[in-house]
Amino acid sequence: MIYDLIIIGLGPAGVSAAIYAKRAGLKVLCFESKMIGGYLNYIDKIDNYPGLYGISGPDFAFNLYESINKLGIEVKNTEVIEITQGDVKEVTTKNEKYLCKSIILSTGRSPKLLGISKEKELLGHGISHCALCDGAFYKDKVVAVVGGGNSALQEALYLSNICKQVYLIHRKNNFRVVGEVVERINNTSNITQMLGQNIKELIEKDNKLSAIILDNNQTFNVDGLFIYIGFEPNTKFLKNLNIINEDGYITVDKYFATKESGIYAVGDIVSKDIYQISTAVSDGTIAATSIINNIIKE
Amino acid sequence: MIYDLIIIGLGPAGVSAAIYAKRAGLKVLCFESKMIGGYLNYIDKIDNYPGLYGISGPDFAFNLYESINKLGIEVKNTEVIEITQGDVKEVTTKNEKYLCKSIILSTGRSPKLLGISKEKELLGHGISHCALCDGAFYKDKVVAVVGGGNSALQEALYLSNICKQVYLIHRKNNFRVVGEVVERINNTSNITQMLGQNIKELIEKDNKLSAIILDNNQTFNVDGLFIYIGFEPNTKFLKNLNIINEDGYITVDKYFATKESGIYAVGDIVSKDIYQISTAVSDGTIAATSIINNIIKE
Repeated sequence: MIYDLIIIGLGPAGVSAAIYAKRAGLKVLCFESKMIGGYLNYIDKIDNYPGLYGISGPDFAFNLYESINKLGIEVKNTEVIEITQGDVKEVTTKNEKYLCKSIILSTGRSPKLLGISKEKELLGHGISHCALCDGAFYKDKVVAVVGGGNSALQEALYLSNICKQVYLIHRKNNFRVVGEVVERINNTSNITQMLGQNIKELIEKDNKLSAIILDNNQTFNVDGLFIYIGFEPNTKFLKNLNIINEDGYITVDKYFATKESGIYAVGDIVSKDIYQISTAVSDGTIAATSIINNIIKE
Repeated sequence: MIYDLIIIGLGPAGVSAAIYAKRAGLKVLCFESKMIGGYLNYIDKIDNYPGLYGISGPDFAFNLYESINKLGIEVKNTEVIEITQGDVKEVTTKNEKYLCKSIILSTGRSPKLLGISKEKELLGHGISHCALCDGAFYKDKVVAVVGGGNSALQEALYLSNICKQVYLIHRKNNFRVVGEVVERINNTSNITQMLGQNIKELIEKDNKLSAIILDNNQTFNVDGLFIYIGFEPNTKFLKNLNIINEDGYITVDKYFATKESGIYAVGDIVSKDIYQISTAVSDGTIAATSIINNIIKE
C-alpha cells in the first residue's frame, strides 16, 4: 500500500491539510505521537481564531479530533523516527515502515523554558509564549516579558500598546539586537528595562501567576509573564533531509514545498513571520491543495 | 477623529483583520453594507474549516458577528462609495466622510450567474461555486460543471477524483484554454464533455436540485451543479485607485499590501491561487499584523 500523502503532526496546520486531502479523495495517513491539536492543548483561551471566539484550547483540540474522526481519516498514535526521500518515500516508526508519494511535516515547535518551579503549571494561567495571541487578555494590566532577542523586543512593544506597564527582563546587560527596535524600546514610556537579571521565582495566587522575584530579590506584582527566549522546532526526525535552516526552521516556497521534492512543511515548523492558528490552517490548506493538484495530474 | 484602520467588508478575511487590530489596541472602524459573514450567509454546510466541522454558513456568520460585538468593534452598516488616498485617507459613504491612517479592503467577490430560473434558490441546495469546498458532499454521486475556462476544467478534474460521473458543460464548441489541462480532461474516463450546450432549466425536487435540461432538450439527473463561469470582484468603489489588475482582482505583496501605501487587500478580492475561508482568515491576520507593527513603530 502506497499512501498518496502522509501527514506528520496533527496540530491545526496538519489537521487542516488532512481535511483537504481526505475530502479530495486522497489516500491519507496521519501520525500524531501525543494529542491531536498539538500545542492547543496547553492554551487556556483563544480569542483570535475567527468563528470560535473565546474557545478553550482543549475544546478546540477536541473539535479537530472530531473532524478527523467524522471524515474517517486514519491516524497512528506513534512517533515517526525517520523519513527517507525517494519517488516513493518511507516513513519509519519504531516498529513499522510506511510508503507514500508525498509528505507534509507539521510537528510544530516547543517554547524554550526558564527552567524554574511552577513554570509549566502556570502556562495559560498568567504565563504565555505569544503576545499576539494573549496580549489582549492583559489590557491595562501589568506584565513582564523575558528575553533579549528581536522577538522579545517586538513582543514588549506590542504589549506596551495594550498594557499599563511592561517590565522587560533580560539576563545579559545588552540586548541581542541593536538599532531601531532598541531605540523604540528606549522611547516607550511604559516599558521598564531590567537588564542583567533573571527571574528566580514565580509566585502563585488562586492558581494564577501573581508576582515574580528576580535574582536581586526584588519582587514585582504582575498579571502576566511572556517568556520569549526562543523556540525549538520539532525536527529531530528529519536529520536525513537537508531542509532545515540555521535557525532550526524549515524553509518553504509559496506552496509550502521544501526543496525536497514531494515533501511539504506547514505551521509552526516553518520559517515565517507570523505563527498563529489562523495562518497555520491556511498553510495546511495551501500545501494539501498543491499536492491534490499534482496527484490529480498523474 | 482619525482611525488607525478602516476595514471595508466583514467576511471571514475582514473579521479576522478586525479581531487582530482591535485586540492590539488600534482604533478600528469597519464597514459592511449587507450582513457580517458575507458570502458565508449563502453556504449550506462547511466541512473544511478546522475547528468548526459541519457548521452551517449562517451559523458561522453569526459566530463572527458575536466576536465583533464582544470585542466592541465599531461597525457601520452602510456602503462605502469612494476612497481617497493620502497620508490621511478618506473613506466616503453616501452621507459621511471618515478619516484613517490605513485601510483593509475585504469586499470579496460575487459568482457570475447563468441567469436561469431557480438558480439563486438552489444555491447551497445542489448548486455550488466551489468544488474544493463542496465536492466531498457529492462523493460517488453525479455532478455537472458549467464553464470552459481553466478554473472550470480544474474543478471538473478535482470532482472526477471524488464523484462517480462528471458532466462538463460549455456553451462554446471549444474550451477557452488549450494544452495539458484539456488533455487530462480528455483522458479522464468519468468526465463526459457536452460542448456547444447551455443549461436552460433546473429541476427541483424536495427543495434540492435533481436534474438539468440542456438547450437540446436532453435531461440529465444530477446531484450537484458547479457553476464556474467566473467571479466579479467587488471593487467598483475603488475606481480612484490604480490597484486592480486586468482580471478585476487586486494585486498584493506577501503582507497583503497593495501598491498604494497604507492600503491592504485580503480574502476573495485578492489575486491568488486558493479562495478558502481558511486562507481568508490568514490573509486578514497577516495584513492586520503588518499594520499593527507599522503603527506601533510611529
